[in-house]
Amino acid sequence: MKKRTITLNCDMGESYGSWKMGLDEDVIPFIDMSNIACGFHASDPHIMSHTIDLAIKHNVMIGAHPSYPDLHGFGRRSMAFSASELGEILIYQIGALKALCEIKNTELSYVKPHGALYNDMMRDQEIFAAVADAVSCFNVPLMMLATQDNQAFLDIAERYDLPLIFEAFADRAYLANGMLAPRSEKGAVLGNEEDILNQIKQLVSYGKVTTLDGFVIPIEADTICVHGDNQEAVALIENIAQTIDNLSQR
Amino acid sequence: MKKRTITLNCDMGESYGSWKMGLDEDVIPFIDMSNIACGFHASDPHIMSHTIDLAIKHNVMIGAHPSYPDLHGFGRRSMAFSASELGEILIYQIGALKALCEIKNTELSYVKPHGALYNDMMRDQEIFAAVADAVSCFNVPLMMLATQDNQAFLDIAERYDLPLIFEAFADRAYLANGMLAPRSEKGAVLGNEEDILNQIKQLVSYGKVTTLDGFVIPIEADTICVHGDNQEAVALIENIAQTIDNLSQR
Amino acid sequence: MKKRTITLNCDMGESYGSWKMGLDEDVIPFIDMSNIACGFHASDPHIMSHTIDLAIKHNVMIGAHPSYPDLHGFGRRSMAFSASELGEILIYQIGALKALCEIKNTELSYVKPHGALYNDMMRDQEIFAAVADAVSCFNVPLMMLATQDNQAFLDIAERYDLPLIFEAFADRAYLANGMLAPRSEKGAVLGNEEDILNQIKQLVSYGKVTTLDGFVIPIEADTICVHGDNQEAVALIENIAQTIDNLSQR
Amino acid sequence: MKKRTITLNCDMGESYGSWKMGLDEDVIPFIDMSNIACGFHASDPHIMSHTIDLAIKHNVMIGAHPSYPDLHGFGRRSMAFSASELGEILIYQIGALKALCEIKNTELSYVKPHGALYNDMMRDQEIFAAVADAVSCFNVPLMMLATQDNQAFLDIAERYDLPLIFEAFADRAYLANGMLAPRSEKGAVLGNEEDILNQIKQLVSYGKVTTLDGFVIPIEADTICVHGDNQEAVALIENIAQTIDNLSQR
Repeated sequence: MKKRTITLNCDMGESYGSWKMGLDEDVIPFIDMSNIACGFHASDPHIMSHTIDLAIKHNVMIGAHPSYPDLHGFGRRSMAFSASELGEILIYQIGALKALCEIKNTELSYVKPHGALYNDMMRDQEIFAAVADAVSCFNVPLMMLATQDNQAFLDIAERYDLPLIFEAFADRAYLANGMLAPRSEKGAVLGNEEDILNQIKQLVSYGKVTTLDGFVIPIEADTICVHGDNQEAVALIENIAQTIDNLSQR
Repeated sequence: MKKRTITLNCDMGESYGSWKMGLDEDVIPFIDMSNIACGFHASDPHIMSHTIDLAIKHNVMIGAHPSYPDLHGFGRRSMAFSASELGEILIYQIGALKALCEIKNTELSYVKPHGALYNDMMRDQEIFAAVADAVSCFNVPLMMLATQDNQAFLDIAERYDLPLIFEAFADRAYLANGMLAPRSEKGAVLGNEEDILNQIKQLVSYGKVTTLDGFVIPIEADTICVHGDNQEAVALIENIAQTIDNLSQR
Repeated sequence: MKKRTITLNCDMGESYGSWKMGLDEDVIPFIDMSNIACGFHASDPHIMSHTIDLAIKHNVMIGAHPSYPDLHGFGRRSMAFSASELGEILIYQIGALKALCEIKNTELSYVKPHGALYNDMMRDQEIFAAVADAVSCFNVPLMMLATQDNQAFLDIAERYDLPLIFEAFADRAYLANGMLAPRSEKGAVLGNEEDILNQIKQLVSYGKVTTLDGFVIPIEADTICVHGDNQEAVALIENIAQTIDNLSQR
Repeated sequence: MKKRTITLNCDMGESYGSWKMGLDEDVIPFIDMSNIACGFHASDPHIMSHTIDLAIKHNVMIGAHPSYPDLHGFGRRSMAFSASELGEILIYQIGALKALCEIKNTELSYVKPHGALYNDMMRDQEIFAAVADAVSCFNVPLMMLATQDNQAFLDIAERYDLPLIFEAFADRAYLANGMLAPRSEKGAVLGNEEDILNQIKQLVSYGKVTTLDGFVIPIEADTICVHGDNQEAVALIENIAQTIDNLSQR
């Protein structure tokens, strides 16, 4: 693995059958951790297998990226599940990806829930506990949003003896409470490369971000989430990677 | 596990969402091996989990029962896959079931393909090899149809260091070549309990069956496949189990 | 069509592929309106076609029973759709059923949304308007819950020139505000045949129900919803039908 | 509608949920007939609605493009259905698209089966008859492959009073028997723009094609199928349209 003080993670393997999504081959040289879809919001066994091969080739860590079962909605619609059912759909997906890793003599390194499930676990401690319980069965850490105060999450995770990986977003603005500004809010998505690189520098060098309304708050992140949807996005990822590597070498 | 000279295996966990299929609770006291659907032709993570619990409670072996991806057709329609894609869909399904077993501290003991995939692997050695390759990754045996001459299958399995479990059918008539008479043929399904129990006795005591056209051929089976679709079927399974146990005690 | 002062409607055609649900053949002699699933929460084109045949044979009205797209959850989970997307999934499903009716020279007579979509339209006027808009394209009425005060619904329906059919439930207790008591509440489902038949008599003779906490409120229903899940339910439907017919003949 | 002696038809609306496929907006100015996917191999109600809007805007005819139910395999895998079940899945899909057309005050003009279903109907007269029967219910023509001798197809179509539209392929080589050379054969797909335009000229001017092995055979086509997968394909479609228009004006 590359040794960065703060890593880059990216969703990968989000094609499905004949449909392509994401420039995985172009993005993977610049990232450290690949969040691989498990067939419930995107991907299929063949695409999962191919994406694992890509991660192995580029020496990138493999994480499971499980979701609510909703291909049509790409896992972006919240769906009601009991805690036990939610655990079962997670174990199913993570187990499937893990088996595909093991036959290639590689390993599953972490789990990051996708889309609506990710948002739901951040806002609802019962859902977070169900996720924590399921992920802990695999003896790998859970990746989640770094907030201004992670203590409540750490307390639940400790119950399940579950390590956490905290992530920040390169291109999303923060609110004063440490949560991401909702996409519906003006300025919620940073559209300007300079703003994004400045947020990266602040995160990496000081563990802080400047919020939408001008406060500086602490955000301690282990990894930064990037997206490789198109060629501009890939170029931005390359610049983010370079920025982090420059800061790391000082 | 119960100690029978020849075991009984039954497909289980074939409900889906709100739809029920099979009298699993009634059947499981009489069988030795449960072939558990993995979500591609039937079942879902919750039903898989529940069926594993049932198998544990009754001390019944757990086998994965993977399929082509076809919920609507219940895995009974042949579908074209390359050998590598077929391996991937098998590993996905088996890995998912295995993970659900492991969190309950039980183990996966074998794999038996379902429906059209089972038939396709019996008639096409390339498909059989793809299945053998995938199953061998899990270090468990493959369950397949006992035929009059199993050598070609044994040769392929040996390449993958894969043990085989051979099964016979209690209620299906055989052809002189050792294959099952196709369901479209008159007399292909034994409708009479006495005929079924006689076929069981002949299989268990002599390793032979009498074919539709009156030949006696060798069928060396490790296990007999039964079905628990309704109350009559369950009563028949109980009689079959009793018949085998009586023969075993002599 | 049978001439009852108040009709009986029942969900039908809720099997899927190899899975059966509901005793449609047993129920249909006693009802007047069949709410036929359209493939999104249950059913498939073959089952839809078969259920239409059954309705024709028994001279029962055919209504479309569209849903959110969620076979696994049987349409019982709320899902986020924009108003225009919701309209499109309704027109797709209703159009499919209507075409299957037309080739058999019969007609679609009404639409009743299913499950979570039904509940969502009753609690959210924006969703109700989207449903009203879509259904009005087919020039058939919309079936919905009779409440203590239907005026807000009538106002929206009038905008789309959409007739409404109001239904009451035979086996569900009402709250003082005229809504159904949530299933989680004690006594929400009437378990006793006498209570159910009394509620029917009160609805048919007086257009009223006695609520869970003892109030008598007006519920003006055109039709009563019954369910045919098992043999006891079918016997109850027969009794309900007999009760209504007796009251009608006075 | 544009008045060409031979029209261009193109598959459209083959995106699904969050996945995009095809440059529909770029292609549609150059074509005459849009074959719109109906949700079984691609598309969903929203995409169907959007694609109908696009066709209306560009004054392009709308055809239903139904398929076997196989999103994952994009309708390219043959699946076993009885004739009556096949009819039902066709009527379901065509009815759904037709309803979406009618609410926009436009009409369905023809049906062209997709993928494996198209191939199966060309090689199996029983399947062709089932398709013909279903399509005839909508009083629109069926689009199919122009072969060297269409008489057998015309005879079946006459039984159902079904008009046929015959199509040729711009970029596919033909065999001496008038069928398309299978893609596995060398030279089966014309890769060179000049070869493609020459085939177009020969089809439009003389109603003939030169086969892979050098024969000149008659192929009477009403329309030519083109594909808009990428920018090169779109540029080629523009050249094909220009070539046909030049020939038509002489």
